[in-house]
Amino acid sequence: RDERITLSHGSGGKATHNLIEGVFAPAFSNPLLDAMDDAAVFSLDGGELQLAFTTDTYVVSPLFFAGGDIGKLAVHGTINDLAMAGAQPLYLSASFILEEGFPIAELRRIVASMQEAASAAGVAIVTGDTKVVQRGKGDGVFINTAGVGLRRAHWPLGQTCLQPGDVVLLSGSAGDHGIAIMLAREALEIETEIQSDTAPLHTLVAALLETIGERLHCLKDPTRGGVATALNEMALASEVAIGLDEQAIPVHAGVRGACEILGLDPLTIANEGKLLAVVAPEAAEQALALMREHPLGREAAIIGSVQADPPGLVFLRTEIGGMRVLDMLVGDPLPRIC
Amino acid sequence: RDERITLSHGSGGKATHNLIEGVFAPAFSNPLLDAMDDAAVFSLDGGELQLAFTTDTYVVSPLFFAGGDIGKLAVHGTINDLAMAGAQPLYLSASFILEEGFPIAELRRIVASMQEAASAAGVAIVTGDTKVVQRGKGDGVFINTAGVGLRRAHWPLGQTCLQPGDVVLLSGSAGDHGIAIMLAREALEIETEIQSDTAPLHTLVAALLETIGERLHCLKDPTRGGVATALNEMALASEVAIGLDEQAIPVHAGVRGACEILGLDPLTIANEGKLLAVVAPEAAEQALALMREHPLGREAAIIGSVQADPPGLVFLRTEIGGMRVLDMLVGDPLPRIC
Ligand SMILES: Nc1ncnc2c1ncn2[C@@H]1O[C@H](COP(=O)(O)OP(=O)(O)OP(=O)(O)O)[C@@H](O)[C@H]1O
Ligand SMILES: Nc1ncnc2c1ncn2[C@@H]1O[C@H](COP(=O)(O)OP(=O)(O)OP(=O)(O)O)[C@@H](O)[C@H]1O
Ligand SMILES: [Mg+2]
Ligand SMILES: [Mg+2]
Ligand SMILES: [Mg+2]
Ligand SMILES: [Mg+2]
Ligand SMILES: [Mg+2]
Ligand SMILES: [Mg+2]
Repeated sequence: RDERITLSHGSGGKATHNLIEGVFAPAFSNPLLDAMDDAAVFSLDGGELQLAFTTDTYVVSPLFFAGGDIGKLAVHGTINDLAMAGAQPLYLSASFILEEGFPIAELRRIVASMQEAASAAGVAIVTGDTKVVQRGKGDGVFINTAGVGLRRAHWPLGQTCLQPGDVVLLSGSAGDHGIAIMLAREALEIETEIQSDTAPLHTLVAALLETIGERLHCLKDPTRGGVATALNEMALASEVAIGLDEQAIPVHAGVRGACEILGLDPLTIANEGKLLAVVAPEAAEQALALMREHPLGREAAIIGSVQADPPGLVFLRTEIGGMRVLDMLVGDPLPRIC
Repeated sequence: RDERITLSHGSGGKATHNLIEGVFAPAFSNPLLDAMDDAAVFSLDGGELQLAFTTDTYVVSPLFFAGGDIGKLAVHGTINDLAMAGAQPLYLSASFILEEGFPIAELRRIVASMQEAASAAGVAIVTGDTKVVQRGKGDGVFINTAGVGLRRAHWPLGQTCLQPGDVVLLSGSAGDHGIAIMLAREALEIETEIQSDTAPLHTLVAALLETIGERLHCLKDPTRGGVATALNEMALASEVAIGLDEQAIPVHAGVRGACEILGLDPLTIANEGKLLAVVAPEAAEQALALMREHPLGREAAIIGSVQADPPGLVFLRTEIGGMRVLDMLVGDPLPRIC
């Protein structure tokens, strides 16, 4: 056999999913990993004190873009994966792979940006590592952040917890981050003000946890692979169907326009400051109101609901009354988006 | 200013130290990071329950070498940094940067090796991440592991805790890992059986913690930069001097020979399965005996002692009765050793 890694294996979509399911998950398998949620959750005192633990590496190119940079992304991303597990983010690690020749002034900018993001979110970077690779064996800088948080949700919360009847909310518009990177990369003649939505979602989550409580069944940040991939993962994990109202899904005009020109679906484009929340039906309006009161949820919307059949399927009710299956992202239209 | 990253910034020696002290530490500064120990230590319940948290990225080249591979190194290295903080390693993360074109069969071998190492050490890999970079923007595979452990040492233990009179022990021979990588890399005409010493040190540490208790003042694994760099970091952090008996420091004949040919000092060469322990004088013989009983400490030795002056200095008493200053590693004779 001569299978090799392709860029699609890094898309966050179907090929990534298959690589994880085919190579990593079977080898490493254990109950904590097998949940395949945004963060692993465990107790250290055999009871009350539950921790969340997560990791992400950032290889985004370019390093600086409208609305952020690799450092901000690295801090926000790990904060968000902890928040999605119902945890309060506390401590981060920061591990750097630097390419020989990288300007130290740029490194300082990135590091300052990381600290700014960490301070603003009330987390501390408490441990780190620094490696260097030869010119041509890296690409400027890659950053890994891992994070530890204290779980506030003491009830089942995760991608296996969706129930028929549940309502699906999205905290804001889809696709901003991916399109901002795309535009930073190519000299496209697209007139738009699109910025990355990179942001720390933990205070929005804290508000949801407190008010919605056990009626909150799942949180997930639709990063690589976008809203479409995240919902497909939930539908598969919970063995339910998710039906969406296409018109209800917020997408900025600039993103919609860029996607039309580029032949992309905004629902498969990465976000870095958005969350999907699945709540019991009776909590939907309250969750929506609460999101809209939060600065990061002003454009929040109810976008669909969960039903029993067909298990594993996500579908869209289109504007013209049709229906189409919404698959995970296939291929990788935008490599190295985060 | 036009300062740029050089390979020496990744050596683990003086240039790495200066980069961390000059760029990362001032920006991220907080009490947990500022300790600059192998792992950060904190409490989550405001008391008894203390955690250790650490991270390392592995960029070793080649990926497979005598005695190990990048996967084993990534698991052992993070276990060891947790152990050095007096913690029982529990959970690891595993984050991969794959280069486009990397053979999936090789990835499987590495992943199997990681799982084997994790199982053998009783730790679980509970969360991960997978990114892909274009051909020529990486080098096969880079792996980050972060780790969480439960602290067993409830007394001051770290590089600021050395006291004049303390005794310094090394758990085995110096330089094996670095020389094994060197030999895997170059077709040198050196006849030796040197293997990487990569190994998980947590059970050796558990024995020390239990028996030596508060008389154990510092543990440090002399990885990049070797024994010389690790001891210099301790001497600086505790503002003490460390005097070593050159003859007492175990170095395998093959390592000594290779170092002579290559013009290297075995004390600046990386180890991946050795620890330095600094203990109160009355505990030294007991610590030595205990190490020698452990499979990973059979060649342990008392190699020197701590004195008040001159603060920050490490020196060697040589075989012929002379004395020389032992500095941190300067430059980088062996890039990408781990
Ligand atoms: N190499 C790996 N080994 C083990 N588990 C992995 C690996 N890569 C990903 N996973 C697991 O697969 C799941 C999905 O990972 P993924 O990285 O897509 O999630 P995410 O971090 O939320 O998304 P993104 O990386 O786009 O921010 C998580 O549970 C993660 O722990
Ligand atoms: N980029 C960084 N940001 C913040 N702290 C860092 C960074 N790099 C290293 N550190 C901190 O500096 C200290 C020394 O790091 P170093 O990586 O040399 O230790 P180590 O992991 O024990 O050694 P090795 O990486 O050779 O195994 C640690 O306390 C670490 O947390
Ligand atoms: Mg996520
Ligand atoms: Mg993530
Ligand atoms: Mg390190
Ligand atoms: Mg260490
Ligand atoms: Mg280390
Ligand atoms: Mg991830």
